[in-house]
Amino acid sequence: MTKTLGVLLFDGFELLDVFGPLEMFSMLPDDFAIRLVSQQAPVVAANGGPRSMIDDHFADNRHYDILMVPGGMGTRREVGNDALLHWLATAAGRAEIVASVCTGSALLAKAGLLDGRKATTNKNAFDWVASQGPKVHWLRRARWVEDGKFITSSGVSAGTDMALALIARLCGIAQARQVARWAEYTWNEDGTDDPFALGSVD
Amino acid sequence: MTKTLGVLLFDGFELLDVFGPLEMFSMLPDDFAIRLVSQQAPVVAANGGPRSMIDDHFADNRHYDILMVPGGMGTRREVGNDALLHWLATAAGRAEIVASVCTGSALLAKAGLLDGRKATTNKNAFDWVASQGPKVHWLRRARWVEDGKFITSSGVSAGTDMALALIARLCGIAQARQVARWAEYTWNEDGTDDPFALGSVD
Repeated sequence: MTKTLGVLLFDGFELLDVFGPLEMFSMLPDDFAIRLVSQQAPVVAANGGPRSMIDDHFADNRHYDILMVPGGMGTRREVGNDALLHWLATAAGRAEIVASVCTGSALLAKAGLLDGRKATTNKNAFDWVASQGPKVHWLRRARWVEDGKFITSSGVSAGTDMALALIARLCGIAQARQVARWAEYTWNEDGTDDPFALGSVD
Repeated sequence: MTKTLGVLLFDGFELLDVFGPLEMFSMLPDDFAIRLVSQQAPVVAANGGPRSMIDDHFADNRHYDILMVPGGMGTRREVGNDALLHWLATAAGRAEIVASVCTGSALLAKAGLLDGRKATTNKNAFDWVASQGPKVHWLRRARWVEDGKFITSSGVSAGTDMALALIARLCGIAQARQVARWAEYTWNEDGTDDPFALGSVD
């Protein structure tokens, strides 16, 4: 059955956080239906300028089987956006899987969704993200981390590896490897293999 | 001086062909100004559904220092679009650098821009792309290929490696490596190192 994948967008999202994973999911259109969602704007601009048209708004109150939250400089603003955090908590509560890329985990943490869970985020904003969720067990050395229905990835490109791990979980490892081959993408299959960790504190 | 990077979009473009490279360029906003361009549509839909808002149309007749052409299923239709091929020949003639990702090289080839040059494309559509440019010297084993101002990459993810090679050419290797680190991206720095070649015929 096709799962609906909702991707939260906001001004200043990071391009590859969104479109790296979506490249992988888009190769399996029978399995994943992609929808971009924002608070209310019909058009949202990424870091660097490229703009995306939104499919859904918060007020549409849609159900997403998988909810994905990207990072980007916009997260610095959105951690103070109560309407967004409230929507996130509701949508995440209904979702089967909740994923974040890069500083997207700051939004999940600020909404209280990661309390008591293991999670990770990118290296360049690690301390800021960690400060948004003091009750989260933050892992500095991880390409991605799975804890129940939550899966959080490290910086930018790590989201693509995480997306393939999700495809492996939902569609099988052979399918995930096939998708990576179609995209001529060298998948880092091991979430604990983090080439960008500068020394583990875990 | 900031270079203007124009990215040709059409319905059915491949997400990562566009946004993998743009992630890398977007990290250097003083060096690269990104503009999305289409024939006339204000909104263009990628494979899988996500839609992009366009910044420029062909009729705007803008100058792009760097022109980038992605692949995707839409290229099967656009090789028969004379208006697009004509615009491409004109814009490429003015550009300092012309880049393609995946089946984007089919459009460059069909416009006659690659005649007598070395080029590559993705593995899954290789023979179809090659048939669009019988005077092109197509290389099956290459992550990307540079020939004068033309730089063509292999499938999907290869475009991101190619973009970093372009950043290295224009901004220096140290800057390119820094961008890859910021994106926590394991850059394949060697254009001849093609993990997806199934045996070279070159």
